[in-house]
Amino acid sequence: MNFEHLLKQVAFIHEIDKVKYILRKTKLFNSERNENDAEHSWHLAIMAIILAEYANEPVDILKVVKMLLIHDVVEIDAGDIFLYDTAVNHTNTEAELKATQRIFGLLPDEQAADLIAVWEEFESGKTMEAKFARAMDRLEPLLQNISNRGGTWKEFGVSYEKVLEKKSVIQKGSDQLWEFARELINESVKNGILISAAK
Amino acid sequence: MNFEHLLKQVAFIHEIDKVKYILRKTKLFNSERNENDAEHSWHLAIMAIILAEYANEPVDILKVVKMLLIHDVVEIDAGDIFLYDTAVNHTNTEAELKATQRIFGLLPDEQAADLIAVWEEFESGKTMEAKFARAMDRLEPLLQNISNRGGTWKEFGVSYEKVLEKKSVIQKGSDQLWEFARELINESVKNGILISAAK
Repeated sequence: MNFEHLLKQVAFIHEIDKVKYILRKTKLFNSERNENDAEHSWHLAIMAIILAEYANEPVDILKVVKMLLIHDVVEIDAGDIFLYDTAVNHTNTEAELKATQRIFGLLPDEQAADLIAVWEEFESGKTMEAKFARAMDRLEPLLQNISNRGGTWKEFGVSYEKVLEKKSVIQKGSDQLWEFARELINESVKNGILISAAK
Repeated sequence: MNFEHLLKQVAFIHEIDKVKYILRKTKLFNSERNENDAEHSWHLAIMAIILAEYANEPVDILKVVKMLLIHDVVEIDAGDIFLYDTAVNHTNTEAELKATQRIFGLLPDEQAADLIAVWEEFESGKTMEAKFARAMDRLEPLLQNISNRGGTWKEFGVSYEKVLEKKSVIQKGSDQLWEFARELINESVKNGILISAAK
């Protein structure tokens, strides 16, 4: 057997280990410990499998899971961008596009092209799969912040209005999950762990 | 909308966060830091997607990915068992079976039954999907130990013969990956990071 093809794949498998060191702003459930991107991606992939029935239209769940498993790989080069950071552009930054080329480019050509396409589909957020995957990406930190009595909302002074705006992306993936999320957000205001800017 | 069904799913999503605290014996690539089960499961799921072409027979890759994402969830209750630990039984322990009931049992009945079946299929190792998933589970720490100049082999005095025996499970999933793995193991002996018991 010629291992040339496989060695490229192993180089990619080795490289993405770095995702385990990229810390998010959000903490684990009921915790002071920051979540890393590998843990986050694992959790989202399982959430997608568990919650697929709520997608607004039937989804190719393997595609959704692929998106979620690899969506943060570009952060090895481009770094994590906090959802509520207003000073930076959030999607398809030049650094991210370069990162897809370098990191997925470690793979054999066809596989690299396939995963770059999956990543771009997720980023564009146009297909039902991308919309549902992005809904998962917004739902997990919402649940985490609630478990942490405000979490990053409190830590970074994020308002109810901003949370509602950012989390409304969930509705594109699932009306039902958005109904649930909105209820959680409204309850958070009542519970005093999220503050309205209008107050 | 009645959230009763969804709240069970959220309880499961919340519970499995604990997988992020379960430390394996194996360290990350080129690292002193122990890997946790969530990181491990994430890595294996991507490996399965990348390496599917080497399976001895075509596999349902979504099934394989599901197995790998959830295979260590039982360790929340049952704990991690080191591959080379000879003092304990490794599969289908009573503690693991009880754990599947409690943890997957948080989900709505049908979903719980589905995931318990997926977990049992993985553990039994009889279907092609289970064999390939188990090959991934053996391949990742092999790559990690090599990157760590011996890793757990050195740390726990594991012999070449024992590694060859334990890693041969890879062949059931993929003859080609086993050819590669065997070559890596033999090279490790030549490089002095793995010692034969016969010497």
